[in-house]
Amino acid sequence: MFQTFETTADSAAVAGRTAQVRDLLRQAGLDAILIPKADEHQGEYVPPSAERLAWLTGFTGSAGSAAVTAANKAALFVDGRYTLQAPAQVDTKLYEIIQTPSGRLADWLIKNLRAGAVVGFDPWLHTVDEIERLTVALKPKGLRARAVSRNPIDRVWGAARPAAPLGAVSLHPMKYAGVASEDKISRLQRFLGDRDQDACVLTLPDSICWLFNIRGADVTHNPVVLAFAIVPARGKPELFIAPAKLTAEVKAHLAKVCRLYAPDQFGKRLAALKSAGKKVRLDPETAAYAIARQLGGMTNCAAGPDPCIAAKAVKNPAEIAGARAAHVRDGIAMAKFLNWLDCEAAKGAVDEIAAASKLEEMRAGTGQLRDLSFDTIAGSGPNGAIVHYRVNAATNRLLKPGELFLLDSGGQYLDGTTDVTRTIAIGKPTAEMRERYTLVLKGHIAIATARFPKGTRGIELDPFARRALWDHGLDYDHGTGHGIGSFLSVHEGPQSISRRGMAVLEPGMLCSNEPGYYKQGVYGIRLENLVLVRPLEPVSGGDREMMRFETITFVPFDRRLVASELLSQSERDWLNAYHVRVAELIAPGLDGADAAWLDRATGPI
Amino acid sequence: MFQTFETTADSAAVAGRTAQVRDLLRQAGLDAILIPKADEHQGEYVPPSAERLAWLTGFTGSAGSAAVTAANKAALFVDGRYTLQAPAQVDTKLYEIIQTPSGRLADWLIKNLRAGAVVGFDPWLHTVDEIERLTVALKPKGLRARAVSRNPIDRVWGAARPAAPLGAVSLHPMKYAGVASEDKISRLQRFLGDRDQDACVLTLPDSICWLFNIRGADVTHNPVVLAFAIVPARGKPELFIAPAKLTAEVKAHLAKVCRLYAPDQFGKRLAALKSAGKKVRLDPETAAYAIARQLGGMTNCAAGPDPCIAAKAVKNPAEIAGARAAHVRDGIAMAKFLNWLDCEAAKGAVDEIAAASKLEEMRAGTGQLRDLSFDTIAGSGPNGAIVHYRVNAATNRLLKPGELFLLDSGGQYLDGTTDVTRTIAIGKPTAEMRERYTLVLKGHIAIATARFPKGTRGIELDPFARRALWDHGLDYDHGTGHGIGSFLSVHEGPQSISRRGMAVLEPGMLCSNEPGYYKQGVYGIRLENLVLVRPLEPVSGGDREMMRFETITFVPFDRRLVASELLSQSERDWLNAYHVRVAELIAPGLDGADAAWLDRATGPI
Repeated sequence: MFQTFETTADSAAVAGRTAQVRDLLRQAGLDAILIPKADEHQGEYVPPSAERLAWLTGFTGSAGSAAVTAANKAALFVDGRYTLQAPAQVDTKLYEIIQTPSGRLADWLIKNLRAGAVVGFDPWLHTVDEIERLTVALKPKGLRARAVSRNPIDRVWGAARPAAPLGAVSLHPMKYAGVASEDKISRLQRFLGDRDQDACVLTLPDSICWLFNIRGADVTHNPVVLAFAIVPARGKPELFIAPAKLTAEVKAHLAKVCRLYAPDQFGKRLAALKSAGKKVRLDPETAAYAIARQLGGMTNCAAGPDPCIAAKAVKNPAEIAGARAAHVRDGIAMAKFLNWLDCEAAKGAVDEIAAASKLEEMRAGTGQLRDLSFDTIAGSGPNGAIVHYRVNAATNRLLKPGELFLLDSGGQYLDGTTDVTRTIAIGKPTAEMRERYTLVLKGHIAIATARFPKGTRGIELDPFARRALWDHGLDYDHGTGHGIGSFLSVHEGPQSISRRGMAVLEPGMLCSNEPGYYKQGVYGIRLENLVLVRPLEPVSGGDREMMRFETITFVPFDRRLVASELLSQSERDWLNAYHVRVAELIAPGLDGADAAWLDRATGPI
Repeated sequence: MFQTFETTADSAAVAGRTAQVRDLLRQAGLDAILIPKADEHQGEYVPPSAERLAWLTGFTGSAGSAAVTAANKAALFVDGRYTLQAPAQVDTKLYEIIQTPSGRLADWLIKNLRAGAVVGFDPWLHTVDEIERLTVALKPKGLRARAVSRNPIDRVWGAARPAAPLGAVSLHPMKYAGVASEDKISRLQRFLGDRDQDACVLTLPDSICWLFNIRGADVTHNPVVLAFAIVPARGKPELFIAPAKLTAEVKAHLAKVCRLYAPDQFGKRLAALKSAGKKVRLDPETAAYAIARQLGGMTNCAAGPDPCIAAKAVKNPAEIAGARAAHVRDGIAMAKFLNWLDCEAAKGAVDEIAAASKLEEMRAGTGQLRDLSFDTIAGSGPNGAIVHYRVNAATNRLLKPGELFLLDSGGQYLDGTTDVTRTIAIGKPTAEMRERYTLVLKGHIAIATARFPKGTRGIELDPFARRALWDHGLDYDHGTGHGIGSFLSVHEGPQSISRRGMAVLEPGMLCSNEPGYYKQGVYGIRLENLVLVRPLEPVSGGDREMMRFETITFVPFDRRLVASELLSQSERDWLNAYHVRVAELIAPGLDGADAAWLDRATGPI
């Protein structure tokens, strides 16, 4: 199993650990310390060795941070997803729970510390921009942020702290990568040369995996390697990676395109760049503050986004072919699961964990599943209204007739990463459920069918997904689409179909299309396919070329939830054509009852 | 008449004047000088005394700038609207014509000057941000920008230069202004106090007119006063205004709310603020560089948008009532004109100037017209495809059967400013014209009927206006909507329904809704109403309050151009309901043939 349904934090130890941290703060002359959920690479997942937030506070959510003062205050900062989970996991007598973004860390520090106070932070766990913003916010009130040389949490954690991961590195075959590492490096070096930059420091695990065509096993769900790299404008890149992660074969491949160093050499090489007066490109949004410091501060660097982010987002033909194949395979697993669900859920014996486990079993049955893309979100009834719900033994619910079941899941395959959400009627849905499902579907179709000119940004498409909901006084509080990697991170930039989506959409980008609607305490609806941005093409009768999306996820929508009378003819046409395509591609992978189910599920409305 | 149809630049003198400017540059040790179309206030229109660009180059367009080097180079920078007009007006042997924004002034300077060169600029004619951007662009190439103490163009222009305008100032009655100047000032002072700012410098003519409830006659079309103001966080504001503009009555009113100074005292008062160490708020996007310099540079100031911009954009109940009344009055004039046009154009004897003149006559006939909102855009056939076309004797065209006529116009009334565009079929339109008109109309209706949540920005509505066009491979290269003043500027911020529209839409904001389509060399289509943002309101069956627009322009759309089969039922319903409302509000102001025309023009489709 690639997922567990336990919550593992040891909340009984929280008071003692927090007290020990306070002792260290007082010894070090610090008035507070920050504890982010982050490692040195700022990836989406952190390894167990970086789970400081969970170890200290008991909170196991996927995002959050804490602050502990040397006196007697402490707070846990979580976003709206975790306002229920946080107080359930954390001793609220010790840790005040504060909801971000309205509750700000800086404001809390200002309220709880006196002028002149010093706030400690681990410079490897915060980005340059984070510390810059914090410093600006604290300064007018006379507070200072100070980098600590050794993290006090780690000192208290001591020998019990898990070792840093040493997941085996594998080569990502050219068949799936599409472009050789040498060619990606040459292109990056031209990019640097064009800007008179001498080198670029890479810190993001997925950027490094993409550039060197390697994959790893250092964190859950994202097959990334935790490593650093320095890519000079000319000459061989330097890759800082634990030797124990490398087999002889991988080492031989990598030695052709880069110089290999142990991670502890990274600081020395940064110092060498600094003393040689090199102009080093660094991404202040993603790079650790410690790196900028070793390079002499950002004023000494060329600030700019990690160039791999934009390059990686535009998929090459091999990656696109891989994504299509992975989605057909994944669609077959989903169809088998949905048939099973339709048969079993009606009996009233399927709960969320059983459903998530069965779905993983179906995906594993393809023989090609490397991991899940993320912990399956399997929310029945009211749990479906929790946008990033993760089922555990305590929250597990039966799928009950008359309720909706929201299922957001994906698989990591060598040829591609999938991410699909369907909402399924258990028993007979209400008229309201059908109406709102159909409004979400209208938004989904509006994105799937949009044509748009060169230069369009995600922010300009997001409203299409909301219009039908807005018209009815409804909305959802998340973006409509995120980028996705090729056997890499399930969330990647720079593109985003959302209110913050200022990156231009380019042909070859892969995005999710996932509008939703959530009725608090009752049910949630989300409908997600992945879509690929196609090249500019002429439009019959028009005078400007337009881009559009190609949907590459192939899973039936639950027709029992479609209120056909709310769809326009062209929306019905889209849905029917989509189901015809699903049948064409998925049916060959099914037989017997599964094939019969698909046939029914993809019939016209 | 509030408009002329002449082009008045004296292009014969261009060579001599440019040569004289070059002599002065060499004497002053300058390698180049910049000549923007701008005055000290950065308003939309400049007075004749600031028409340096037209005087020097012959170019009379509404926007542009030039640069002249001391050696033998010169360039005129114009945007896409003026790529035809500029070479027709300007001697291209003397001035290279460069299209912005792709052609950049800084690049041209770098290309045409050597490292070490000094570029002169008049610090009163450029904003702080402009000079900041220019300096940053020039620095890596070793060029410097230097403020000149006296503009060399003015020295050559000499006694022939018109005097600065002394338009009479009038009080804007409370009946129309809605909020007393004292109250606006108090609110601004609280705003400054909340931010620990000691004072704010105002330089925008419409901000000053709004704050003090005055109107003026210093430039064409916008009833603004050219003046400066310093508003302290406590105590009386200081208004710097030529005494000759003030009658005794106006002076008495103003003396109650501010201290009056002659404009030549402005510099001394700025210097006093600086030497007193005051924290002065200044808008680097709109304030002249010279002002920041007198305050000791922006690092010495509190940078932030002119606070009047956002305050003025939200109309109060009196302004809203005024806008509604002005639009009914203006709609009656438009209806009379459109009836006349339908009768006369078919005879083949109406040209663009005749149409624009007749429309002005109809507006003047209301007895309440104070000015036009802008020079009427009256484009027949191919001239309609020129987005900001201004007819003159040379370009004037007959309205010919089988063509479209695009008419964008507005009136300045004491109670409101109007801005309306209609596209009218002269004779029988083609099927393509009707299809594209209807696609533009669909975009217009999509804005008119949109509901949207609190926090929505114009950029998130703009795509609704384009969707039908995008679907057909069509688009338009301008924003969908701009803010508009109350008997003030026809274009005002901060809101904008466009790709740049990052300001949140607030109830009470007034915007245009004007999608278009332009077939180069053949015809143009634009459909514009003004819309008012209404307060949040519940939506039946929904769970979130939404805002929407109320259309306040009442002029029939040309039903001969509506391809009804391309409209959805709800779009047809909107159009028919709109026409019913137009008939209700406008018919009482018409009689005889005009009333009969309106009755036909507003019939159901």
